[in-house]
Amino acid sequence: MPNYQQRIERARAAMERLGIDLLYLAPGANAQYLTSWRRNRPHFGNVNYPGGWIQGMFLGLHAGPLLAVPRMVADFDLEPGTDLDVRVLPDRADPAAFLNTLLEEFEPRLGAVAVENRAWSEQVLALRNVRPDVEVRLASEVVAPLRMVKEPEELDTLRQAGRIVDQAMTEVVGFLRPDSGQTELDVAYEIDRLMVEHGADGASFVTNVWQMGPGEMRALAMKASRRPLERGNSLSFDFGSTLGGYCYDFGRSVFLGEPSAEYVRVHALVMSAAEIGIAALQDGKHTAEQVNALAREVIENGGYGEWFRHRLGHGIGLDVHEPPYLDRGDTSMLKRDMCFTVEPSVFIPGRFGARTEDVVVVGDTAGGRLLTEYRRDLQVIS
Amino acid sequence: MPNYQQRIERARAAMERLGIDLLYLAPGANAQYLTSWRRNRPHFGNVNYPGGWIQGMFLGLHAGPLLAVPRMVADFDLEPGTDLDVRVLPDRADPAAFLNTLLEEFEPRLGAVAVENRAWSEQVLALRNVRPDVEVRLASEVVAPLRMVKEPEELDTLRQAGRIVDQAMTEVVGFLRPDSGQTELDVAYEIDRLMVEHGADGASFVTNVWQMGPGEMRALAMKASRRPLERGNSLSFDFGSTLGGYCYDFGRSVFLGEPSAEYVRVHALVMSAAEIGIAALQDGKHTAEQVNALAREVIENGGYGEWFRHRLGHGIGLDVHEPPYLDRGDTSMLKRDMCFTVEPSVFIPGRFGARTEDVVVVGDTAGGRLLTEYRRDLQVIS
Repeated sequence: MPNYQQRIERARAAMERLGIDLLYLAPGANAQYLTSWRRNRPHFGNVNYPGGWIQGMFLGLHAGPLLAVPRMVADFDLEPGTDLDVRVLPDRADPAAFLNTLLEEFEPRLGAVAVENRAWSEQVLALRNVRPDVEVRLASEVVAPLRMVKEPEELDTLRQAGRIVDQAMTEVVGFLRPDSGQTELDVAYEIDRLMVEHGADGASFVTNVWQMGPGEMRALAMKASRRPLERGNSLSFDFGSTLGGYCYDFGRSVFLGEPSAEYVRVHALVMSAAEIGIAALQDGKHTAEQVNALAREVIENGGYGEWFRHRLGHGIGLDVHEPPYLDRGDTSMLKRDMCFTVEPSVFIPGRFGARTEDVVVVGDTAGGRLLTEYRRDLQVIS
Repeated sequence: MPNYQQRIERARAAMERLGIDLLYLAPGANAQYLTSWRRNRPHFGNVNYPGGWIQGMFLGLHAGPLLAVPRMVADFDLEPGTDLDVRVLPDRADPAAFLNTLLEEFEPRLGAVAVENRAWSEQVLALRNVRPDVEVRLASEVVAPLRMVKEPEELDTLRQAGRIVDQAMTEVVGFLRPDSGQTELDVAYEIDRLMVEHGADGASFVTNVWQMGPGEMRALAMKASRRPLERGNSLSFDFGSTLGGYCYDFGRSVFLGEPSAEYVRVHALVMSAAEIGIAALQDGKHTAEQVNALAREVIENGGYGEWFRHRLGHGIGLDVHEPPYLDRGDTSMLKRDMCFTVEPSVFIPGRFGARTEDVVVVGDTAGGRLLTEYRRDLQVIS
């Protein structure tokens, strides 16, 4: 069990320093970080309950954390046996009045409230209506810096998530049958099934498997589709397991049938860029943007810079993408036990795509430690 | 193709009437309703791009609709060939300044802006910073009433989604193997696979399959788990396909092994309540809350009212739950071609659960028309 009390103390220290009296967090990674409250897998269509916007976790400088949920969520959705201080909005109660009563449990004067960046606008507008006197700021100010360096327990969970991904990738490669009618979506759903079979809670983001080749002129829009696997295409993977709320993010490209000499070269180039990025993940040596530049240079020098059209990587943990970012403009100095994806790519519409991605822990002078062990050579699927 | 121009005219008429100068919609059902812009399947962990909060659709009284997205979304995520007016936030541009420039394309004076109810708080706070003069209201005021009565094309899509669900349910019942080690999650992932195999874009919400029985004392928390299927338990289903952005929602309960006489009776009681509810879905005859009361009465008279702990149903369409609601307090008069779920249940923790759910179209004096045809008798899985 993480030391939630210690995390709350660190959050309160940050709140004091920033002049924030109350955190109002929607269900999500920040609330889990501070109180163990787990978010559910998300729905495609909205699911609405009366007063649903009230749902959130409140943490004051001296009171809380407490959890507010509508009755339907309390009855059907909360993990049984939760030891959180839960307040339930009755079915026909006025959620605004309920919120007002909750707020009275905190500071007598609320100068500034920091709300979850992705809380619903309905929640923040209700807060402003109920308490027009408060300044509303963003919770990322308080919580994002706390989450950057991972605790040993968090690293263990990510390592386990990585092991699940290694197993799923090994098995799904054996499942590929080009020119048989098997589609990208068939492969994506098999990956989802395999991750759960190997112990994952689910997918950390929508599993993506897509071909690029002469027959595929969709610009760069890359989503698993009903297109059957065909020899002559590259097949790229982007997926991750979720475990205990933590998110993994992994990728490789394989080739269906015989690759061209150019593809072999580009695949190796992408792998070299990754090696350089991984080796540069050293405590106190580079900033996030410097690591991006080092790996990007490999691909630029190889002549394919134009087709590496995204950042080298991103922080990862309770969210798939979280700061810092291995991107131009992010001047954060890297610290031991930060976690990043390293994911260079070359995607050329109408030709091919090559990518690789692992989660890497910032280490000492020996460089970053990979959390997935899956092979890094080019796999040819005949 | 729906007549988007007509829908936009109806939205503008509502905006005029309500004194709203601009709609600012996040990706979601409202934006699809007005412009065809499809939302993606959602991720478990947050996926963040620079300026990600800008993402949305703007519709003014005389200008728009236009779509604003960050560069990464434009490159990797937008459907190719979209004919929307798309404005792309460059990678290192200031999203607030970009928003301000966009707003200048609309009314010279923005009195009130209605934002998506579930837009991120970060978006609405940025809007307030950029234009502190505007009144911020909720988009549901404008768009929700337009979406209640379904057009023929929308009904066709929901009917197709229902057919997919019928097929998936038929096949998954043949897949059940109690006392074999097969788990609730195995069944849930098989349903997801089957829906896509039969043509769905995915699941409209997280597929749920759960047992209730003497061995299961989790209060009412109902989520598919790794618990193996065991004879002596009821097994309840709650799932739906999504197709072209529309959401289906379906349910049944089956019994694993021989049910008790009480279970047979309760299952029949739930089915009778559903019949009464379905028959009451008549144009202009009842309000939403009256239909809820009529069906609830059946279960109360049968002596199980205490265990029917949720509303009878909800509107459904581009969202899983949308107004009106078959619930106490919703006095909307029913109109032809509104769509509702009818989903009575009796769930008794530590004993059993029985539910049924279909999407039903409000009809004439003959009552509602079911969009799923799956059998309604008690199925015993030996």
